[in-house]
Amino acid sequence: MGKFKNLISIHDLSREDIDLILDTAAKMEDVAVKRSTDLHDKIMAVLFFEASTRTRLSFESAMHRLGGSVLGFSDVMSTSAGVKGETLADTIRTVERYADLIVIRHPLDGSARVAAEFSSVPVINAGSGAEEHPTQGLLDLYSIKKMKGKIDGLTISLCGDLKYGRTVHSLGMGLSHYNVKIRLAAPPSLRMKPAVVDEMKKKGISVEQVDSIEEAVSEDVDVIYQTRIQKERFGDIREYDKVAGQFKITKKDAEKLRKDAIILHPLPRVDEIDSDVDSLPQARYFDQVYNGVVTRMAILKLLFSDA
Amino acid sequence: MGKFKNLISIHDLSREDIDLILDTAAKMEDVAVKRSTDLHDKIMAVLFFEASTRTRLSFESAMHRLGGSVLGFSDVMSTSAGVKGETLADTIRTVERYADLIVIRHPLDGSARVAAEFSSVPVINAGSGAEEHPTQGLLDLYSIKKMKGKIDGLTISLCGDLKYGRTVHSLGMGLSHYNVKIRLAAPPSLRMKPAVVDEMKKKGISVEQVDSIEEAVSEDVDVIYQTRIQKERFGDIREYDKVAGQFKITKKDAEKLRKDAIILHPLPRVDEIDSDVDSLPQARYFDQVYNGVVTRMAILKLLFSDA
Amino acid sequence: MGKFKNLISIHDLSREDIDLILDTAAKMEDVAVKRSTDLHDKIMAVLFFEASTRTRLSFESAMHRLGGSVLGFSDVMSTSAGVKGETLADTIRTVERYADLIVIRHPLDGSARVAAEFSSVPVINAGSGAEEHPTQGLLDLYSIKKMKGKIDGLTISLCGDLKYGRTVHSLGMGLSHYNVKIRLAAPPSLRMKPAVVDEMKKKGISVEQVDSIEEAVSEDVDVIYQTRIQKERFGDIREYDKVAGQFKITKKDAEKLRKDAIILHPLPRVDEIDSDVDSLPQARYFDQVYNGVVTRMAILKLLFSDA
Repeated sequence: MGKFKNLISIHDLSREDIDLILDTAAKMEDVAVKRSTDLHDKIMAVLFFEASTRTRLSFESAMHRLGGSVLGFSDVMSTSAGVKGETLADTIRTVERYADLIVIRHPLDGSARVAAEFSSVPVINAGSGAEEHPTQGLLDLYSIKKMKGKIDGLTISLCGDLKYGRTVHSLGMGLSHYNVKIRLAAPPSLRMKPAVVDEMKKKGISVEQVDSIEEAVSEDVDVIYQTRIQKERFGDIREYDKVAGQFKITKKDAEKLRKDAIILHPLPRVDEIDSDVDSLPQARYFDQVYNGVVTRMAILKLLFSDA
Repeated sequence: MGKFKNLISIHDLSREDIDLILDTAAKMEDVAVKRSTDLHDKIMAVLFFEASTRTRLSFESAMHRLGGSVLGFSDVMSTSAGVKGETLADTIRTVERYADLIVIRHPLDGSARVAAEFSSVPVINAGSGAEEHPTQGLLDLYSIKKMKGKIDGLTISLCGDLKYGRTVHSLGMGLSHYNVKIRLAAPPSLRMKPAVVDEMKKKGISVEQVDSIEEAVSEDVDVIYQTRIQKERFGDIREYDKVAGQFKITKKDAEKLRKDAIILHPLPRVDEIDSDVDSLPQARYFDQVYNGVVTRMAILKLLFSDA
Repeated sequence: MGKFKNLISIHDLSREDIDLILDTAAKMEDVAVKRSTDLHDKIMAVLFFEASTRTRLSFESAMHRLGGSVLGFSDVMSTSAGVKGETLADTIRTVERYADLIVIRHPLDGSARVAAEFSSVPVINAGSGAEEHPTQGLLDLYSIKKMKGKIDGLTISLCGDLKYGRTVHSLGMGLSHYNVKIRLAAPPSLRMKPAVVDEMKKKGISVEQVDSIEEAVSEDVDVIYQTRIQKERFGDIREYDKVAGQFKITKKDAEKLRKDAIILHPLPRVDEIDSDVDSLPQARYFDQVYNGVVTRMAILKLLFSDA
């Protein structure tokens, strides 16, 4: 019915698709404030098999601003899937009868694509395993475009956990459609998978890998995208402490940036950006949050119409 | 105000009541698609003291399609009832001040009736103990009528856990108002309680009890209603495995059915219907899910109006 | 924008502020029944870091009656704050981008004020630590005014846990603006903190402290405000049993009251009011629940407009 059938991976989107989403998001800035009733006859199901604040509430805020209704769950143990052992396929074939659209977060890689295969209504991947989080990638692209006026021509550092961080995979894939220089800064054990790096290079992107946060947070950089290093990925807590300690952005680091550089973060942040960075003009991660609302409004609109 | 004050048990409904609900559900097919604002001034409270996906989301979908609002809980441990030891009566006397209608699921037999006694607003039983699940029974009746064109004259097998399965109690009671032949197929330890069988017989229904799924899934049957055997009812896991293994519907079983027979299941399904049955024309359990939305829309309408 | 920026503590309100809220609540009685669309373009976030039924559902009911939307969580372990260790400040700076208003309950004293400092949208304290629960205090004042026709001139007993009970702190502070006589009845270990008593006295209120429930439930009293003694405050369960047992209101106690006296309770009640008191004309605690809806409607309105 709409422009897209599902939104499972940034892999599935062309440059034109991405530009359409970013342009539509810009149009939604106004609608987000004034509100609309465009989707008053649509019900969105949110199926969150994993903890979330931001993504779920952001989708719900987007849907409410478009006049739609929301149902779903955020605690799998209050559901049949959790308690009675229902398969994901059966859950989807059930929920598609209750809603016009399914937003799913699930701990397993590939889960969102499985959901889309079984669903007759559109499915949006709100985070699947360590693999993808396409709406986050799109809101990050929208944030860059809105804050910097363009994406082409920028130098962008992706920092932190580049191996397991699903947001950075989606953002990296999205950026590969643009003429950008990418600097990857990660501890050796958390480097971006070679397959992803190769894919970016194949598209003609300049990709550089560095080992320290200092090399990523430097004067020639336009955008710093910092991510959280996930404690649960480490067997040895001392190893985590060492690695995480080296990849923090401090106020001293941030003051080396140009005044018009921007620091983004998918959030939640634990301590990988010191809280005294928050007051610097480059710190834009909370403004980035709101861009999630308008980007998701755009995605919801484009699933149901061509506009 | 409406046609019914509460919906606690199918026992409380006459044949005329049931026919009115099924006829209203048929009228709701159209409204479910186009949406309505008939209940825009109504708030539905969902009080789920037990895990659920289907029933809660189905009610919420029905209410949203009628323009109403929803509040409530699905995780009792986030409530005062769970944490602070409030009685059900006090919870009801509180929630009736917040909502125009209460939908309750509770692990104890009789809980919904207690709720209705203390409530000044209508109460719908969304599953109480092992005893009753009347809206499931009504949507099952609606599914049979919609898919087979009639209920009278059919031969219907009820299979699986007939002792503890609350949906099958409600369906059995509903079917006893019609001129049907009922075949009960259950392991010896999970047979329908004699009181329920006697009640059906008293109403003139032909009731036959068999011990195997093969006798239930046969060529003379119009409707197979399969249910899940609940692992938690068995002290000995080997006993469960033996019983559950014998009461599965396989593709080979299903192929013995007439082409116009239908297989229903209240869901969730674990493995009591093999997944390769899903693609057979007789497999209608996912279509049955949607009938829950229109049947519940009908029930909501009839609690607030005569139409 | 509205009359108030936030609602964190009754301390922040003047007598004029309180009177405005109570007068607006009276106007909301009619709107609560007929419903309104005044806040159709507003989204309320409910952030419940602690278990609640009443307060959350009461706010949601109020918001739905004014035509607004609701999002949020009631189970902190399904959120990033719970699972990923996000700070309250970061959660607030995120959620303020999703909603036009934040309602927060949190186990720590001062948490709601911290939230308001970080939020650019209005924050309502829905219970912070053992310290304050201002909307409960206001609905209690409204209940007294509605049921007794006035507040000035009344004799009011506050009973039970006066040390840790946050509702009684808020009510006490609210009452100190009126010309009332207050009798405090608590076990020695759960007496009102001297600072709070001194504050009331400083405002010219007559405050009397008694040790038994019998002295609080007497013929000269207009309003009995009973509270739950929280088991978890006692190290020794026998000590709890002794204290809690002495501070129950029985039917025999209640029958000593004048016919026009009223018994209130913030609920949930465990056994500190015997259930056979419920049928007496003085028992008004369930009517009090509904006053929470109209009082919260008034607060929501006054955050967004002057009316």
